[in-house]
Amino acid sequence: MIIAPEIIGYIAATLTTASFLPQAILTIKKRDTESLSLGMYSMFTVGVLCWLIYGLYIADEAIIFANAITFVLAASILSFKIYNVIFKKG
Amino acid sequence: MIIAPEIIGYIAATLTTASFLPQAILTIKKRDTESLSLGMYSMFTVGVLCWLIYGLYIADEAIIFANAITFVLAASILSFKIYNVIFKKG
Repeated sequence: MIIAPEIIGYIAATLTTASFLPQAILTIKKRDTESLSLGMYSMFTVGVLCWLIYGLYIADEAIIFANAITFVLAASILSFKIYNVIFKKG
Repeated sequence: MIIAPEIIGYIAATLTTASFLPQAILTIKKRDTESLSLGMYSMFTVGVLCWLIYGLYIADEAIIFANAITFVLAASILSFKIYNVIFKKG
């Protein structure tokens, strides 16, 4: 069976975008961010914002859509991490 | 100042790829994965593998390179999470 590259691409984009949903739910629920890396979420959130700007530049709806969702999720997780680092030292 | 879209794209790719390095280092060092979501790392690792296969299909070196690195990092973090879920219940 040969799968069209586009299908693999769509599956890849869906999985990597949607994956941040269970992490955001877990973080919002438990408010525990001790094993989350501040460096990772800082770099990742800025990176996703750059992807979003890139998508707007080249007017690619798929890139805009996927990265707008991921940005909201990653920024939420980052906010909890920053809050805990400042107020709870962890 | 106008920045070329390609430059924004390269910055985006570098940041989102490199961001998993501090998380992998933190996880390997502390071996604590309690606030990491198993759902996220399962979906993300499979998603990045799909990106890698997609890159190989369309023979895009940038996609192959970025996702090969991210796959190794995400799979390492996932391994620690699975180990802790099985042996340490967390």
